[in-house]
Formats: sequence, structure tokens, C-alpha cells
Amino acid sequence: MALTVWKEQEGAGITFPEGFVAAGVRCGLKTEGNDLAVLVSDSAAAVAGVFTTNRVQAACVQYSRRVARSGTARAVVVNAGNANACNGEQGDRDNRTMAEWLSRQLHVAPDQVLTASTGIIGHLLPMEKLEAGITSAVAALDRGVETDQAAVQAIMTTDTRPKLRAVQADSDQWVAPIRFGGMCKGAGMIAPNMATMLAFLTTDVRMPAPLLQEALSRAVAPSFNSVTVDGDTSTNDMCLLLASGMGEGEISRPGAAFEDFVEALTRLCIALAKEIARDGEGATKRVEIVVQGAATWESAHRIAKTIGESPLVKTALFGNDPNWGRLLMAAGRAGVPFDANKVEVRIGEHVVCSEGSSVPFDRDAAHGYLTGDEIRLLLDLNMGEEAATVWTCDMSYDYVRINAEYHT
Amino acid sequence: MALTVWKEQEGAGITFPEGFVAAGVRCGLKTEGNDLAVLVSDSAAAVAGVFTTNRVQAACVQYSRRVARSGTARAVVVNAGNANACNGEQGDRDNRTMAEWLSRQLHVAPDQVLTASTGIIGHLLPMEKLEAGITSAVAALDRGVETDQAAVQAIMTTDTRPKLRAVQADSDQWVAPIRFGGMCKGAGMIAPNMATMLAFLTTDVRMPAPLLQEALSRAVAPSFNSVTVDGDTSTNDMCLLLASGMGEGEISRPGAAFEDFVEALTRLCIALAKEIARDGEGATKRVEIVVQGAATWESAHRIAKTIGESPLVKTALFGNDPNWGRLLMAAGRAGVPFDANKVEVRIGEHVVCSEGSSVPFDRDAAHGYLTGDEIRLLLDLNMGEEAATVWTCDMSYDYVRINAEYHT
Repeated sequence: MALTVWKEQEGAGITFPEGFVAAGVRCGLKTEGNDLAVLVSDSAAAVAGVFTTNRVQAACVQYSRRVARSGTARAVVVNAGNANACNGEQGDRDNRTMAEWLSRQLHVAPDQVLTASTGIIGHLLPMEKLEAGITSAVAALDRGVETDQAAVQAIMTTDTRPKLRAVQADSDQWVAPIRFGGMCKGAGMIAPNMATMLAFLTTDVRMPAPLLQEALSRAVAPSFNSVTVDGDTSTNDMCLLLASGMGEGEISRPGAAFEDFVEALTRLCIALAKEIARDGEGATKRVEIVVQGAATWESAHRIAKTIGESPLVKTALFGNDPNWGRLLMAAGRAGVPFDANKVEVRIGEHVVCSEGSSVPFDRDAAHGYLTGDEIRLLLDLNMGEEAATVWTCDMSYDYVRINAEYHT
Repeated sequence: MALTVWKEQEGAGITFPEGFVAAGVRCGLKTEGNDLAVLVSDSAAAVAGVFTTNRVQAACVQYSRRVARSGTARAVVVNAGNANACNGEQGDRDNRTMAEWLSRQLHVAPDQVLTASTGIIGHLLPMEKLEAGITSAVAALDRGVETDQAAVQAIMTTDTRPKLRAVQADSDQWVAPIRFGGMCKGAGMIAPNMATMLAFLTTDVRMPAPLLQEALSRAVAPSFNSVTVDGDTSTNDMCLLLASGMGEGEISRPGAAFEDFVEALTRLCIALAKEIARDGEGATKRVEIVVQGAATWESAHRIAKTIGESPLVKTALFGNDPNWGRLLMAAGRAGVPFDANKVEVRIGEHVVCSEGSSVPFDRDAAHGYLTGDEIRLLLDLNMGEEAATVWTCDMSYDYVRINAEYHT
């Protein structure tokens, strides 16, 4: 039971699997660049979704959760530049109107259209711009690398780079190869909890929606839910997975083939999630935090996330300082019991703390390691067998600049 | 049942109540300034203490918790510049030696000496410097404003200003006025949980230790435990209260007089706690966050603290941006149920959000208000009758600079 093929298609994204077309256009919600994306499935795709756990939820989150629950969808419309959150009933109406406009142009039922928004909170959507944008997006619907690039550009806000993936995978348990596509965005208000800022995944497998939902829920925990930029869970987090059923692959029940599907989906999600961490607001490096030797995955994950959200840890990383005391401090405030006198800490390959105390290490070499742009920190609790990994970034002057200059 | 007198003594601190002497000297642990403080009670003072809940605890925390449990103490020795945390058994031995040196010079039992440390984690204490410092501190023991100032200087690390208070209070329930003194420090790794970084409080009331402990525990919740700078709970947090019994005041049982004592002590703690918020690392302003209309104090407090720890809220405040969407976002991720459609948000006197949606407000005036150095934010959940207040500060470039340049 294992994946036998994992072939990435450079530059491609959500239209790589069979049965999808997409478009990314500019309608004027952001100050520049594309800001409206549409994804359409040729067939009624099976759909799965996970959504923010924030108590304050954007109109699109509440609406798309209902659509996803129906199990099928034909299209997704996404805008960047305006979150359409905290806009009361007018926000709900505008969100439905957005779905209706697209449904009319595609000649599908309105309840087969998912919506997603990202951007500023508390401002009404400029509906005229959106209407024109939807029309031009529908006219531009296409398939291929250029389309995938246009679409991912349209969901970016403070992201400095597009985040997309396309993969053809195979397993000896599958009847045929399965294609996957995906795109997502960061870059602030990122501490997803059962979802991420925005992620859209496609596949051409034929699979019942409940099984698809189970696969997505399992794939999200060690990927998008293991990323943190600033600890701030967004009001608009959403991860959608559409399965067109237009490829030759088919998985209809739990078992070995399904497990390999979950593995492939998880791998895709981790690749995308790591890009979010690398592109966190103001980030100069990506930081992988591994907590091992824990009693449970949950406790390891909680400690890793607390370390990843600690402003003192993140500023020390920006300063390239091997300040393991801050790592221990953050671990200690995670609310998880452990014996501080058993902890080992490694910065890259450098053991900097053993049995909870300082050990001699080459400070210059550790400092040099921290100047890299991919850092790995490891805490071994020496209590049990479980481990978890979380990805984050450092906290720089630019994090403050971006968020202090971002004006409502 | 109320306080009838509240008279602050400008510039004075821990030796203001009867029965205390103190000293602050330099022994060379910090790069400059005083770094060793000693506080001595003429009598066996009743003692109360609250300590960090971090799983990783400095040697002084574990030791002083035991001393405080005995109910009486004669002296406290505090150093800044070195936390003596994560130093294993050597750290424990050094901490005991510190207490023993002071006990020998004062001719008191070693288990009557409390210790506290603050500074870098994972470096052994330079014991020779400490020994010389304790000798010169004992020689300098005195009472008065100059002494109080020297002592508070000795507990500062990245603090930019000393934090101290001296008050004479009276109540119609008391047999005589009671004096209070206090000093504390910030300024990073501040999210106290049952304690604060370091706070030392004195009073000349005569009171049994268990009652004193109850008063301190109650006073700490709405004061030191309601301050956050960066959400990072220190390994060394400690708040000690010594009651010399050398004044004319005496409170021996619960009741109206005790309640007024708790009120006075709480007021003192809030005054000191607010100074920690104002002097948070890199802070340009103090921010008071009030959450009202909640079902319980705990839920209001949790929401207020989540807002106060949100990097997105804190950077927006640095940018003087009335970004109420971030306030709602942070409230929504606090893990407390509420109806987002009922929330009202005020920035100073400006109502910026009502029933969970934007309302028109004077942006220029709100921006102008936020440029001040004391800001008040209010969230009304409109669910219940309870309220809580948390104090924090904004997050500036200097927060990043201080913590990125602070090298181990």
C-alpha cells in the first residue's frame, strides 16, 4: 500500500485534473492585478469543504458550508480585496447575488455555486464591479497553465508569490492514475483551524462526497491546520475540494485505495501549506518545528503551534539567534504536561539543550544555520512515541510594516 | 464599606510601609545599572506569593514557592540580567547559595529568604559577582525614596522606566490606616498567568498569612493577570507580598475590613500592572481593552486577552488604524460562544461597529484618537452583565528590533 507515482507538473494548478476549466480576471477590488477567479467543473463534482472555526464568519463561509453539505457543486467564484465579513444581512444578500450571477451565466442551479472572499473586513462588496468581473471571467474560461496562473493571481492579497500545485499520482491499489490540482493563499491572519485562509483543490477521481469529505478532513490536520503565521484565525478560512469524476480513477469505499488517496491528498496539502508558511507576511525564512517524544499527536501539535506563534521565538529567529530558552518558555506555556528536565532541543543538527539544560554548542555555526531560509527546530520531550510538525516563519520589521500600513 | 483615604506618595515604593528596609546595587550582571535588590523586613513578615504556571520554571520559582508556603519570611534577594532558568541542578544549588549568603549576613534562617531572578535563560549565574553584590547591598540597606528608586532600578531589564507605587489608605472598617508599597518590572515575555514577571509588594498591616494569600490571589486576577505584552508567559513570573505587621493596622479575619484591604491591594496592583502595559517592549501607547455584556467575567477576560495578544490588532494600533474588523476577528477566535450579529465596538467614544456590522463614523477623528498614548477599546457582546478589562500595548518596529537584537 503505497504511492508508486508522484509526478508534479511545473506551473500548473487547478485545471490540471480532467473536467475543470477556470479563469482569473481583474474587476477592480484590489489596487492592482487579478482579483476575481472562477472555477467550473464540467460535471456535477463531488465536493468537500472545511471552514473556519472563528465565531465571526464571513457570508461566504456560512453560505458555502451549506452548499458543500449537499455533496455536489458545479462552480466556485472567489474574490480578493474584500472579505465581505461583518456586513450583516446586506453582506449575505451580496454573497448570494454573486453566486446567482455566476449560476445564470453557466446555466446551473444557484445552489451549485460555491463562493469565497478574502480581503478587508467590514466593507460592502462593490457589486457593479463584481458583476462585470463575473461576465468577463466566464468569457475567459479555459484550461492550462496560463489559466491556472491567472486564477491563482486572482486570490492573492499580501502574498508575494503564487502558491499552486499539479500532480499526477498513482498507486498499486488504484484502477488508474489520479490527477490533483490546487492553489491557495496566505499571508496574514493565518492560524487555520479546520481550514486555511483560502485553498481550492481539484481532482478527477470519481468518489462519493462523504468519502471525499473524510479524505479532506484527514488531509487538512497535518497540513493547513499545521501552519501559523501570526496565530490569528481568519473569519474567511475555507478549503474546498472538488472531484470531477472525469478521470479514469474511481474509489468508492474505504480501504487500501482510499488510504493511498488520503496520502496523496495530504502530500499535496502539505506542499501548499508549506508555501503559505514561507510566504508569511514579512517572512525571511520558513521554520519547521518538530515536537517528538510526546504522549499524543495532539499534545505534540499544541506545543509545536505554541512555539510557532510565540512572538519572542519568531523575533529571535529573525535575528538568527539560537535562543533555545525562548523555545522552552513557549513549550512550557502550551498547557501540556511534560518534564522540563527531560527535554532535548536541536537547532538544525545542533543539540543546544539536553535534559532541560544548556549544553556546549558551536554558536557561530548555529547562528550561520539560522541565516538560511529553511530552518528546522526539534524538541524531544522524551516522554512517548508521538510527533507533530508545524510550519511557521519568522517575525520581521516587514510584518509590522505591512500590518501597520494596511489601512481600513 | 469603602476606602475613605487613598493617598499616593510620589516617587516612593517598597520601603514606604513600616518595618521594611531595602537596597539596590550594581554587581555586574547587566551591561549597566543596578542589578541586585534586597528587601528586608524588620520582623518575620507574613508572606503571600503567586508564581508562573509555565511548565518550565526557574530555580527561584520552585524555591520561593516553598518558602512562601511556610507563611513567613524575613527577606527577598532579586537579581536582573540572568533568569537562572534551565540550568539543571547547578541552577538549584546556585539559587540556594544566593539565599544562604543573604541569610548569613542578616543572621536569619535561610528558609526565611525568598529569591527571584529575571534575565536570560540557560546561563549559569556568575556567583562571585553575586556574592560581592549581596555584601554591598546589605551594607546599603536603608529606607526612603532614594532606596526605593535604587531597588526598582535593580529589577529592570528591557524596561524603559521604573514602576513603583506607595500609598497610604484608610477605610471606615479599619482600626488604623494601612500603608502599601510596590515595585514591578516588564517588559517582554509578559502574559502572566497567576503571577507577573516580577512584582514585590509590601504592607505594614498585621494579618495572618492565609488571609494575606487570599487577598493577593484575588488582587492579581484583575491586575497582573490582565496584562499582556506578547502572550509569552515567562518561566520566572513571581509576585510576592510581605506584611510586616509593624503598622497599627490589623485584620485578622474575613469580613468588611478584609474586603476593603482586598480593594486597596487590587487598586495598587492595577496601577502597577498598567505601567507594565505602557512600558511593553517597543510600545508607543497603552491600550485598555474592555469587553462587556458577557455571560461571565472569565469569558469576557478571555476575549479581551485574545484581542490584546493578536499581532494584527497590535500592529494596526501601531499604525493608528481604526481596524475594527481585526478586533472582531480576534474576539471570534477566543473560543468563547457569542452572537457576532449583536456585537458593538467602540474606539474611544467612536462607535465603529453595531450589531456586528460597520456603521458610519468619523475616520479622521478615530485615527486622531488612536495617535494618543492611552487608548480604550470596548466590545459589548450584548449577551450578559459581566465585564473584564485587559491592558496591553501596540506592536511596533521596536518590538521586533529589541527581540531580534537581544542575543543569547
